[in-house]
Amino acid sequence: MSTIADVATRAGVSKATASRALTGRGYVSDETRERVAAAARELSYVAHSSAMSLATGRTQTIGVVMPHVSRWFFGEVLEGIQAALLEHGLDLTLYDARPGTATRRRVFEDYLARRRFDGVIAVGLEPAASELDALLALGKPVVSVIGAEGATSVVTLDDAHATALATAHLVELGHRRIAFLGGTDETRWPHVESERYAGYESEMRRAGLAAEISRAPAELSMPAGYAAAVDLLSDPSARPTGIVAACDEVAIGAIIAARRLGILVPSSLSVVGIDDHVNAEMFALTTLRQVPHEQGRAAVELLLRHIDDPEAETVTLRVKPRMVVRGTTANVTGHSSVAVRDSSLSRRD
Amino acid sequence: MSTIADVATRAGVSKATASRALTGRGYVSDETRERVAAAARELSYVAHSSAMSLATGRTQTIGVVMPHVSRWFFGEVLEGIQAALLEHGLDLTLYDARPGTATRRRVFEDYLARRRFDGVIAVGLEPAASELDALLALGKPVVSVIGAEGATSVVTLDDAHATALATAHLVELGHRRIAFLGGTDETRWPHVESERYAGYESEMRRAGLAAEISRAPAELSMPAGYAAAVDLLSDPSARPTGIVAACDEVAIGAIIAARRLGILVPSSLSVVGIDDHVNAEMFALTTLRQVPHEQGRAAVELLLRHIDDPEAETVTLRVKPRMVVRGTTANVTGHSSVAVRDSSLSRRD
Repeated sequence: MSTIADVATRAGVSKATASRALTGRGYVSDETRERVAAAARELSYVAHSSAMSLATGRTQTIGVVMPHVSRWFFGEVLEGIQAALLEHGLDLTLYDARPGTATRRRVFEDYLARRRFDGVIAVGLEPAASELDALLALGKPVVSVIGAEGATSVVTLDDAHATALATAHLVELGHRRIAFLGGTDETRWPHVESERYAGYESEMRRAGLAAEISRAPAELSMPAGYAAAVDLLSDPSARPTGIVAACDEVAIGAIIAARRLGILVPSSLSVVGIDDHVNAEMFALTTLRQVPHEQGRAAVELLLRHIDDPEAETVTLRVKPRMVVRGTTANVTGHSSVAVRDSSLSRRD
Repeated sequence: MSTIADVATRAGVSKATASRALTGRGYVSDETRERVAAAARELSYVAHSSAMSLATGRTQTIGVVMPHVSRWFFGEVLEGIQAALLEHGLDLTLYDARPGTATRRRVFEDYLARRRFDGVIAVGLEPAASELDALLALGKPVVSVIGAEGATSVVTLDDAHATALATAHLVELGHRRIAFLGGTDETRWPHVESERYAGYESEMRRAGLAAEISRAPAELSMPAGYAAAVDLLSDPSARPTGIVAACDEVAIGAIIAARRLGILVPSSLSVVGIDDHVNAEMFALTTLRQVPHEQGRAAVELLLRHIDDPEAETVTLRVKPRMVVRGTTANVTGHSSVAVRDSSLSRRD
């Protein structure tokens, strides 16, 4: 069996360089990395990662716990984590923990307890406190994406700021009846949902307006937003002229509901989302952009800092959203028809 | 430091049972598993997975290579793989290989070459033959989800059958001008896209009708379907009455395009998708259902068979789609107004 020394000799580099090239830890030029990789292939060299783990106590693996890989936000975060880990030569072990399942219980009781990783990134973990405690009890660094501050370092959108900006945008356009469409289900992601509602509510209060919420029944998805919007919009006498949606998928569901009810967007109803979801542009959706891919990358950098320095202080990285004005928001009907015609905000979808 | 013997004693079971309970390999009752897990927690027992790997030559880890985790099909397959692996006590290491990126090259050249897994599931791997060869050269079992048959065992939807059923459904409803909306881009997933086109084309030929294709420009997504449908539908004189879409996201994009163009679905245009995507029901989409979660589970079972028996023959598991008739398909306008009124197929969305 070939050794790292054989590979180094064949590639014409030192053992240390060959090791750096093969593990991805530390700098080597692309050209050297490729020469070493070629030598390793020719010699059928296999890195003894198990033996390496015993020697260093490191697994060169990061665990990722998340409840849904197949939803946009989570999938994008996961891609960002993966991209950053690859740059650092680290593997990613995925622990899929869908809420309320027996699998989730096993993930926390058995799989994570094996500690086959150097640290954990927990994405969208509900603060069922026992679960976070279980993670922390493993004695490995933990970083959260979406989550309660304090116990771990956290990467999160500034949720309250996002809905405050969305609400202020509608208020500036003259809207007075503005509803919040989404959930505040405390059993889900309270640090998302209640923060988003709070941002809307405080901005409405500041403007001297009454807050009004229409809960998405099951989850923050397009069909849930559709159903909640049908409820909200079917009575013409009680209809808002503006909607702040808890996320883009809910906003898109509301736009589709409005079309089916014959309500024109944006001339009779303005809708703002949060996310800049992959489908937002197609619906010309005005939204507050976040880039979950970058949040995943940031979580990796934070985690590596905690792994390298166990005494490092926990921090919260609060990402500011950026307003993207497209075609689903306009001056409230009758408020200023001249402005409606002139404004770039008044495009009909 | 506690040993497995300490855990077994505390839990009142044999060492073998404690080991089965902690590794998840082999049967133990839920009650026993929980008792052993509790004992392990109380004793802060850590399984020496690295040492175990050296002894057995197994890593208890399965590698998964996929190009997009954040798209519905891939995310659902990944969840199915994860669920099945957890039942077998195996970890999942994710290798995200987006097409045409430097990351993807490194995944194939470096990361996979470390072989820190017992086998690989390759999902949606384009048959850039060198990549599949690189995977096979690792000498570990490989199973593909979507992929060329022969070199590895494959789990796949019967794509040609799906579009043949979709086309036959429209032909039975009296449609004569039926377009295929999607791609046949050979650089993407030819075993999906060309098979789906082939099923449509052969069914059109069987019915004595002319095939007609409108390519989705970039990928099989909702915005791409929208753009392709706008092209296809904007000339009233050349407009088809039926669309077979390459997947549900493309079909939903087409439905939205039709609404914007003032074309009523299904009375002036019938649309059929493939997938039964999470958003299909909301659009009352008639579709051919596949369950990617189950395909992920099936890939795990196939892979474990190949790991346990390296001589096992490669097989192709071709999953039959199931027709789900909802509200986007109806008799062609004027073909039989009585049937339109009477048929359950004629619901307007």
